[in-house]
Amino acid sequence: MVKVSVLYPNGKDIKFDMEYYCNRHIPMVRQLLGSTLKGAAVEQGLSGEQPRSPALHVAMRHLLFESVDAFRKSFGSHAETIIADIPKYTNSKPTIQISEVKL
Amino acid sequence: MVKVSVLYPNGKDIKFDMEYYCNRHIPMVRQLLGSTLKGAAVEQGLSGEQPRSPALHVAMRHLLFESVDAFRKSFGSHAETIIADIPKYTNSKPTIQISEVKL
Repeated sequence: MVKVSVLYPNGKDIKFDMEYYCNRHIPMVRQLLGSTLKGAAVEQGLSGEQPRSPALHVAMRHLLFESVDAFRKSFGSHAETIIADIPKYTNSKPTIQISEVKL
Repeated sequence: MVKVSVLYPNGKDIKFDMEYYCNRHIPMVRQLLGSTLKGAAVEQGLSGEQPRSPALHVAMRHLLFESVDAFRKSFGSHAETIIADIPKYTNSKPTIQISEVKL
């Protein structure tokens, strides 16, 4: 199983509309990717290790797929639609990491 | 529910012993934190968005707790033991993020 993590860096003037993200963007992604998407998780950054220190990422999203190929085929067909939706909820420029799930 | 993500930055000369991490470190953390720990996930970085591009993080770990307080009380009592184990599996300096689970 592979996890595709989308990390939205935090910073001064960074905005993130979590309501739009959870209620509009993620449902759209689920619909587009269909059964290829094996799981999805969304988190909102609260802090760093120390209380009141800023979180490195304003939000993180994790999508599960059976393989890197399954992700590329499924996401590739809809990448434009999904990427075009980003400015509707954030001005943060996300970085993407593909990982192998170990535990 | 809160998720405590430990992100191990990747880079030149960064080493990470995933076998030790999964078979020795994580079981130790589970034992120390006991029932306060509601879930744990571990991933090994494969790539960035593009095939063959380097992963930003050599590994990521996510721990679930009921609240930030539950994490601080439970982890705080064992932080020294857990942190002292890090050099046994990596020379990467992890960054920590505390997030609220939204989905």
